[in-house]
Amino acid sequence: MARFLTLLSDFGSKDAYVGAMKGAIAMISPDLNVIDLTHDILPQNIAAASYNLRSTYAYFPSGTVHVAVVDPGVGSDRRGVAIAFHNHAIEGFLVGPDNGIFTGILAETEIIVAMELTNQDYWRSPQASNTFHGRDIFAPVGAHLASGLSIGSLGKEVNPASLVKLKLPDLWQEDGKITGCIQYIDGFGNLITNIPAKLIDGQDWAVILGGQEIKGGHTYASAKMGELVALVGSNGWVELAVNCGSARSRLRLDYGDPIQLVIDP
Amino acid sequence: MARFLTLLSDFGSKDAYVGAMKGAIAMISPDLNVIDLTHDILPQNIAAASYNLRSTYAYFPSGTVHVAVVDPGVGSDRRGVAIAFHNHAIEGFLVGPDNGIFTGILAETEIIVAMELTNQDYWRSPQASNTFHGRDIFAPVGAHLASGLSIGSLGKEVNPASLVKLKLPDLWQEDGKITGCIQYIDGFGNLITNIPAKLIDGQDWAVILGGQEIKGGHTYASAKMGELVALVGSNGWVELAVNCGSARSRLRLDYGDPIQLVIDP
Amino acid sequence: MARFLTLLSDFGSKDAYVGAMKGAIAMISPDLNVIDLTHDILPQNIAAASYNLRSTYAYFPSGTVHVAVVDPGVGSDRRGVAIAFHNHAIEGFLVGPDNGIFTGILAETEIIVAMELTNQDYWRSPQASNTFHGRDIFAPVGAHLASGLSIGSLGKEVNPASLVKLKLPDLWQEDGKITGCIQYIDGFGNLITNIPAKLIDGQDWAVILGGQEIKGGHTYASAKMGELVALVGSNGWVELAVNCGSARSRLRLDYGDPIQLVIDP
Repeated sequence: MARFLTLLSDFGSKDAYVGAMKGAIAMISPDLNVIDLTHDILPQNIAAASYNLRSTYAYFPSGTVHVAVVDPGVGSDRRGVAIAFHNHAIEGFLVGPDNGIFTGILAETEIIVAMELTNQDYWRSPQASNTFHGRDIFAPVGAHLASGLSIGSLGKEVNPASLVKLKLPDLWQEDGKITGCIQYIDGFGNLITNIPAKLIDGQDWAVILGGQEIKGGHTYASAKMGELVALVGSNGWVELAVNCGSARSRLRLDYGDPIQLVIDP
Repeated sequence: MARFLTLLSDFGSKDAYVGAMKGAIAMISPDLNVIDLTHDILPQNIAAASYNLRSTYAYFPSGTVHVAVVDPGVGSDRRGVAIAFHNHAIEGFLVGPDNGIFTGILAETEIIVAMELTNQDYWRSPQASNTFHGRDIFAPVGAHLASGLSIGSLGKEVNPASLVKLKLPDLWQEDGKITGCIQYIDGFGNLITNIPAKLIDGQDWAVILGGQEIKGGHTYASAKMGELVALVGSNGWVELAVNCGSARSRLRLDYGDPIQLVIDP
Repeated sequence: MARFLTLLSDFGSKDAYVGAMKGAIAMISPDLNVIDLTHDILPQNIAAASYNLRSTYAYFPSGTVHVAVVDPGVGSDRRGVAIAFHNHAIEGFLVGPDNGIFTGILAETEIIVAMELTNQDYWRSPQASNTFHGRDIFAPVGAHLASGLSIGSLGKEVNPASLVKLKLPDLWQEDGKITGCIQYIDGFGNLITNIPAKLIDGQDWAVILGGQEIKGGHTYASAKMGELVALVGSNGWVELAVNCGSARSRLRLDYGDPIQLVIDP
């Protein structure tokens, strides 16, 4: 049966770093299907990595191994970990640094078991570099896992509660008002809030911005070309967009900026 | 037998949107060979998508499914379509929005049958998002087609004449002069015209630009380093290039700008 | 058995040029595992291509074919070549223009045999374009090689000593001082010198820069956030980095700039 391993990193595409990881995987398990999620996470932006992993993992078959490497602490005493997780529909594995990169997925799944990657038998070689654990530890460990190795072989079990988590941005609700913030800005310049669709489903709503009311719509094209639209995006969050344009450039808003939404405006 | 599915979009590489499409494909057909054509089409630039598809489809084996998603009208009433096409040498399938994105391929092939994608059985789920049909409809439909599903199952047949087509840029010929325009600018800054090689084959020719005559050459290196050259590019169109440089930056020309060529100058 | 073919080029991701190469490969050998090393080599930068190939080849299984296309002289009289190489651990093949692109790998491996690609039977078609040998010659030849074709079939044998080599940057050692230069700058802005780790292993060392002494450390995180660090990078060269930042922007140094290192400072 085909097995899948995904890769996500901030390595960019200018260098052959991702290629080297794929070589390390090929050495161990030449028949895996290796799929790039993205390698253009902003350098060292663990929150953006967490968001993208959360947005994507549920689209892959059960058993998929997600190797994620945004790792400013590489070579320091931060742990490397492998995690088996499940929710009602999907099981999978996560491999990477224990720095909060899996916060998003773990916010909506259960941990089956978490291991610290102390068993060097499954590294590329016991002499891992100090600066590229993606190639020397995480990709090889991911390849072994995807090939059927028991996760228990990878090292010593760690208490799931001890895993590093990012603080997810806050969300307040009162009197038909919801206050959240921009949790992610995608490559189109769409501003994705942390307000989930379920809070507004079936209701009329609008985003309030600088005194202006932007009525909740359904599609980018429901606004005129070049105009602002508020809608539920493909990952289930309220987002602000400009039809055929960039809401980021238009509104000059950034990560973390507050967004207010009203129900039945 | 290995089956191929190509992906082209304007999703860029910053986010995991393409990764999610590949997950949706893996769920349906884990053994497909999925190949990226490019995901860096300028946002919403349907003409650039059409050009790149036309330049590439003929290099793939018969039976390949090309899924293309540059889709500013996603979620509106624009149709989603699947098309079976052939020319003398190759058969294949196209899947994407009916917005003109396949104009280039359809200019040089015949349509066997075209279907509107109304059968939700072959979507990822009947509840497709309003903003990401690439993941929720086009990629799943493409995966089913590449796995051998009959195209007739995908929905209701549409009249090929009703498919949306882009207006291709004009080309005039008279008295040994050809007037066309720049139809595409590639990542090297090469200016690719809409003048096909067959109009100049075996003849002497030159491009006239601002009173200057640029003689038709054969290779980038036939000009000195940093100098302008006119030649037939790898996709069979007359193009302007700078040896080890960018003709776009040098000439400050853009999409649609007119280009005049003379035979036997 | 799975066979691997890697691709490296300066084609970028804006156009479908890489997609066309993959189509040409699929036509010949649909079951190959094709892996991108990078396609974002700076246009026409043969030295950067050589560096990335040298940094990556050893991570792939024996028998892997590396097709590399940074080729400003395409269509001129520069030769196309295929090379079988080995070192103590690995055998592999190189396919591309004879312009020095393989200098880095050949600096640390032995040539078994080198062939000029004169046999058009293994090109995509005898009528190769003048501007895209990657698609028309190198990718098809690589696909044939990876499928088991004998390298001897590809054309006529050439004297290994006649292959074009880049001049590798100089390195001086005297009295506990080593003077090298910056040979590569990666996408993080890390400045990678040509000083190999073996010259400093097990010793104290520091880089001297504008009168300042930067002590050799072990990890990016061994410096405070935003501070400069000198360390041995993942490819075995001394490099200068900024923890969570760009050494290139901080130091405003460029390719070829001299770097001085002292032992036991």
